[in-house]
Order: sequence, then structure tokens, then C-alpha cells
Amino acid sequence: MTGNNTAQQQVFVKMVHDAWHSKLGQFDKLLSELSDEQLQKEVAPGRNRGIYLLGHLTALADSIFPLLGYEKIAEHLFQPFVHTPDKQTGELPAVSELRQEWTRVKTSLAEKMAAISPEEWFQRHTSVSQEDFEKEPHRNKLNVVLSRTSHFDYHLGQLQFLKTR
Amino acid sequence: MTGNNTAQQQVFVKMVHDAWHSKLGQFDKLLSELSDEQLQKEVAPGRNRGIYLLGHLTALADSIFPLLGYEKIAEHLFQPFVHTPDKQTGELPAVSELRQEWTRVKTSLAEKMAAISPEEWFQRHTSVSQEDFEKEPHRNKLNVVLSRTSHFDYHLGQLQFLKTR
Repeated sequence: MTGNNTAQQQVFVKMVHDAWHSKLGQFDKLLSELSDEQLQKEVAPGRNRGIYLLGHLTALADSIFPLLGYEKIAEHLFQPFVHTPDKQTGELPAVSELRQEWTRVKTSLAEKMAAISPEEWFQRHTSVSQEDFEKEPHRNKLNVVLSRTSHFDYHLGQLQFLKTR
Repeated sequence: MTGNNTAQQQVFVKMVHDAWHSKLGQFDKLLSELSDEQLQKEVAPGRNRGIYLLGHLTALADSIFPLLGYEKIAEHLFQPFVHTPDKQTGELPAVSELRQEWTRVKTSLAEKMAAISPEEWFQRHTSVSQEDFEKEPHRNKLNVVLSRTSHFDYHLGQLQFLKTR
């Protein structure tokens, strides 16, 4: 019967992981279609630039590590791309460097995610106390990925405006 | 032990429903902040208008009904807002009418969703055959809501460009 429970967990883990990897696939495809020059442009007049959203999504993916119990690997991106709005930081890394950072973060995160057992995905993420988690068992590690997937789509919808038609 | 399994399912269902309702809440807030006139504008130069995205999101929410085993209640919106790109249909409904349609669809869908049992959410959605479902149990009803939530965010990120700063 525990087996049943695990089978059920596996199904749900797959649903959430598939959604996450599908969005990442769309982002990678879009990145491959956009030149470094295009990424320097604003996605709409007066809005964030592509380079900012690339750094933002990389920093947010990186911020998943601690919630799963690992250390960030691109901490230096958080201040300029999450804490600070676009166009208010003097100098940003080059687009080519950010592309590499994105690949590094996504690859390492996929490895870590693949190694987490179904049971562990349903344990609390590190920013929830044990006491709160007993009352709110939906605040688990998998829920972090679920909500980040949707946030990814939010910015994907904006980034695709950089494509020429 | 079946109880355990159901408790687990309830947690998953809550995770996905919370994410869905959270996006709908964001969409409602945005709609309340945008005038009918603002919704007539393109979200970015040469891109979809707000009115089109309002109709699009309403028609896509409506298209969830059949996947859960119910009939659509706003079928007339599918052709102009999903099948046809923006600015290629002669006359669209008024924004005020679309706001009402959105409220009607979202309210009815919430009622239907609330009445589905945790077990039923993990049964196949109507566009998957029983045979395929046995091999791919993640293609269940809950997965429809999960993927639609993310798609909602895709367009929310674009619609918020209509807000004046």
C-alpha cells in the first residue's frame, strides 16, 4: 500500500517535472532564435530588456537550490537581476556570459531534481517550518517547482515579443 | 491505506487548484485596473490587443469543461479568439460583454472543479484513450488545470503591459 502511495507520488512528480522541463525547452528554443543584439532590446516600449529577463530567470532558477536544500551556484546574479529593477544597475554581465550561466544553472538543477526521490518531493521546502508544514502539507518541495514553472511562462510570453516576424 | 492515498491526492489537488485560483485572482485584479479603452490597445506594438487576450483566456478556460466531462458554456468565443488570430475577425464582442462572459465561465468552472473528487482528478481526461492512459497516468484531469495555469501566466505577463505606470 505504501507502494501505491509512492506510485501516486511518482505520477504527480512527473506531471510537475514535465511542465518545468517543457517550459525550459521553450525558453532554450527562444534563446537560440534571439541574437545577443536582440536580447539587448526592451520587450515592449519602456519595459524590461531581454538581457534582464535572461538574468532574472537564471537567478530565479538558481534560487530554487536552497529551497531544495542545496547551495546556489549563481548567487551573484540575484542582486542585479531580482533585487534591482532593469536599467538601474550600472553594468550587467555580457549576454554571452548570461547564456553560459543559464546553461550551467539549468543543467545542475536538472541533475539535483532527478536525484530527489518521490517521497522527498513531498517533504517541506526549507523556508517552511515543521510546525507550519504539518498544517499545510502542500508547501512541499514540489510546489516550489510548480509555482516557478508558471512564473517562467509569465516572462516567456514577454520575451517572445523580441522575435522578428 | 486507501485513506493515505486519498490524503496524498488531496494535497496534489490543493497545490494545483491553489495555483489556478491564484492566477485567476491576478487576472481579475488586472481586469479591474484596466478600462475598456485600455483593453482595446495592443499589449506591444503589432501584437495582440487586450480584448483579444481577454476573449482568448475566456475561450481557453471554457475549453477545460469538455476535458473534465462537461459541456462548454461559451463555445461561440472559440472561433474568433482561439482559432482566428487577432485583427482578422471583422467584429468582436464588446469588452463589457467579454468581461461578463469571463465571469460566467470562471464561476461555473470553479463550481464544477470544486465538485470533482480527489480520486476523479487523477482519472484520464476525455481526450486520452483508456489504453494510452494506462501507459501514461499523468495525462489526468488535474494535469489539464496544471498546464492551463501556466498558459494563463504566459498571457498575464503580456497583459500587464497595458497598465499605465
